[in-house]
Amino acid sequence: MKNSLFIFLFISFTASRIVAQNADSVMIKNMFDNALQSEVSYEQLKGLCEEAPGRLAGLPAMDSAIQYMFRLMKAMPFDSVYFQPCMVRQWLPGRDTAWYTINGKRKFPLTVDVLGGSVPTPESGIVAQVVTFNSMDEMKKADPASIQGKIVYFNRPMNQTYYNAFRAYGENASMRVIGADEASKLGAVAVIVRSLNTVIDDFPHTGIMRYKTTDKKIPGFAISTKDALELDSVLKLYPQTNVFLKSTCQELPEIQQGNVIGEIRGTLHPERFITVGGHLDSWYNSVGAHDDGGGCIQSLEVARLFFAIGYKPQNTLRVVMFIDEEMDQRGGKKYAEEAKNKGEKHIFALESDHGMALPTGFSVDSAVLAKIQTWKYLLEPYGFNKIEKGFGGVDISFLKPLGVPLCGLVTDSQRYFEYHHSANDTFDKIVRRELQLGAAGMAALIYLVDKYGLE
Amino acid sequence: MKNSLFIFLFISFTASRIVAQNADSVMIKNMFDNALQSEVSYEQLKGLCEEAPGRLAGLPAMDSAIQYMFRLMKAMPFDSVYFQPCMVRQWLPGRDTAWYTINGKRKFPLTVDVLGGSVPTPESGIVAQVVTFNSMDEMKKADPASIQGKIVYFNRPMNQTYYNAFRAYGENASMRVIGADEASKLGAVAVIVRSLNTVIDDFPHTGIMRYKTTDKKIPGFAISTKDALELDSVLKLYPQTNVFLKSTCQELPEIQQGNVIGEIRGTLHPERFITVGGHLDSWYNSVGAHDDGGGCIQSLEVARLFFAIGYKPQNTLRVVMFIDEEMDQRGGKKYAEEAKNKGEKHIFALESDHGMALPTGFSVDSAVLAKIQTWKYLLEPYGFNKIEKGFGGVDISFLKPLGVPLCGLVTDSQRYFEYHHSANDTFDKIVRRELQLGAAGMAALIYLVDKYGLE
Repeated sequence: MKNSLFIFLFISFTASRIVAQNADSVMIKNMFDNALQSEVSYEQLKGLCEEAPGRLAGLPAMDSAIQYMFRLMKAMPFDSVYFQPCMVRQWLPGRDTAWYTINGKRKFPLTVDVLGGSVPTPESGIVAQVVTFNSMDEMKKADPASIQGKIVYFNRPMNQTYYNAFRAYGENASMRVIGADEASKLGAVAVIVRSLNTVIDDFPHTGIMRYKTTDKKIPGFAISTKDALELDSVLKLYPQTNVFLKSTCQELPEIQQGNVIGEIRGTLHPERFITVGGHLDSWYNSVGAHDDGGGCIQSLEVARLFFAIGYKPQNTLRVVMFIDEEMDQRGGKKYAEEAKNKGEKHIFALESDHGMALPTGFSVDSAVLAKIQTWKYLLEPYGFNKIEKGFGGVDISFLKPLGVPLCGLVTDSQRYFEYHHSANDTFDKIVRRELQLGAAGMAALIYLVDKYGLE
Repeated sequence: MKNSLFIFLFISFTASRIVAQNADSVMIKNMFDNALQSEVSYEQLKGLCEEAPGRLAGLPAMDSAIQYMFRLMKAMPFDSVYFQPCMVRQWLPGRDTAWYTINGKRKFPLTVDVLGGSVPTPESGIVAQVVTFNSMDEMKKADPASIQGKIVYFNRPMNQTYYNAFRAYGENASMRVIGADEASKLGAVAVIVRSLNTVIDDFPHTGIMRYKTTDKKIPGFAISTKDALELDSVLKLYPQTNVFLKSTCQELPEIQQGNVIGEIRGTLHPERFITVGGHLDSWYNSVGAHDDGGGCIQSLEVARLFFAIGYKPQNTLRVVMFIDEEMDQRGGKKYAEEAKNKGEKHIFALESDHGMALPTGFSVDSAVLAKIQTWKYLLEPYGFNKIEKGFGGVDISFLKPLGVPLCGLVTDSQRYFEYHHSANDTFDKIVRRELQLGAAGMAALIYLVDKYGLE
């Protein structure tokens, strides 16, 4: 009797587990099938790229992007679509000019973009000789007299030998972010950084720079890899070469912009929140198709897939278009601040900000890694082979102090830095199926978290 | 005593195994590091695309490609570089024109490319009504009277829901290959096939078509997916729409071209051969960067890496630029025929003809699968996660009757059919790091096969 009860229970358990597995497989297959057969997300991203290129927070293009996303969301059966205002910096890029001259007569143009947040040059520009360094350390060890009055040129290529190109980016980014700040302490008058680009081409790759000192801010520029090679050769032959740099960028008082949010109210636990998002801002020099227009549209696609296949989440799903990831993360900070102030219970947050290449898996907070790995077999048929401990995303990172489990979509990195923060990040570089696979994988993971929880 | 001897042997064995493992890891890391830091293969492929676009076997562009590869190989320290002549068909594409008209007055142009091997239309072209089918089966079940005198239009989109896009290609390709032959039996006057393309764009995707019947050959065309949608809508509204088709393609007597081969003589077993190759021909409408210029250059890169890091293979390595994969595989057949006639011992053949996307692994003959899988841990750090049973490649497939273990480089398929057999397969679609990773993985595998054998 006991035995047969045990066997009965065992069979029931196993059977119900198989039924649940099959139901999940079927649900997830529906999501992928729908995503891969729909042109919606691809066309939405095309629209964003066309209507709001250069949508840096603080710029009018950002308002266009906000309006565009509002229009898209309002046309979908969200329970509510709303704006979460926050103040953002109003740093305006201007016109950037650069050239070098050997004999003082002929000017050879250099392709540069000013770094984000830089001070402008004087109106007459800056003309100075150049001192080249391979790293911050090398600069700090140099004789300050060799730097005084000069333009510091950080000419360090990305390390090509890492399989994960983000690793090479991580190693080099500090020269862009705080290189000018450090160089100014040593008497430099400006900084040029070799673009963080894995190929040799004509596109400067900009990005944020920060000043810790307030007294002596010098401007920073990114130079295209092609012109970095040229400048390097010229400097080796003619170390006295003069370089001219000019940027008319300026910073005006902060203005109000904000996050755009769409909500599907939870059927069982409307007071519990799952967040999925990307950042709506891009760099001023970029259409931002990969970084991060695609991540925004993928997040929206999660909701579209739920609507399309009729899945009603138990918990409230928020699709968030975060503002200002690139400059000061005001959107992410504001979102977390309001969540905290309102005492909201957030059970999961997922961000897509890794470029629209082939999805390879998810990077997950260690606390929920084991649980999420139990679903790996459901995602592997779609190429999500790696569920690993790792970073979720910049915008959602501000939820971490609230104890929210964070997760990021991971995609292959081989071509990302050809586009990143440059005019080369255009819609034609998007592979429709990669965008869709990522979105469907995100929808599948959120479905599983919503259904089973992460406890 | 016994015990300590056992322990000693165990430690020796383990230690020597670890040393061997480390030596292999180091060798393979050297290969990847060298490949990823070199611009050589990328520039070589750019050169091939520029010097020999549209290099279909039988065309003058094919001669340019052969000369180009000869120049590259002759500049490298191969022990010998030689030409392996064979006869190829001389099918010449001409000018293709297509339009439809609803009221007989205005002509709306359609973007088509003639299928490879098609007969031409009459000089005055063909004007006929169109009958649409979704498959060969649907056509065969139709009333022949509805087909008589008509243009058969196979308007079946690729199935987007498969993760592996090659699966969808496999399902649809027969309409292109034998659709015209089957339609002619039912009285059709020509065939239009919707391009085998995963996106909606303006590029027709051509490819081989074959006639089994000799008495009644009708021409075949590929239409761009964009115009396929247009034609489809028009036909639904106006079923009587007339379509005009014209192609001035022609077939002349066969001519001699051939394979280009570079050889590194084996240090230990010069009489044993390892083959690595791709096919040098492309479609007439295409630069053939992905299909298969990249595969050729990757094969050459294997040799360059061996030279660069000073690895001298024990067995003779042959880098083969196969001719005529697309039409009649004369290069592959010739290579296998000579191998057989000379009684050569071939221990391994590896082909790259899967597009230059992210490498994901190798597809291997089942006989050597287990052995190759023992090396998986050496390749996984570079993304080669899947060593699976599968097809090696069309060109090397003719070695199969000689018992040669075959293997193919596998890359991700998501974007391949956007390019395949079309004018969209251009050099700018190549991601340098993906090309290099594939080449280095091929070099690593050949190194392991060369060193340890496949017994």
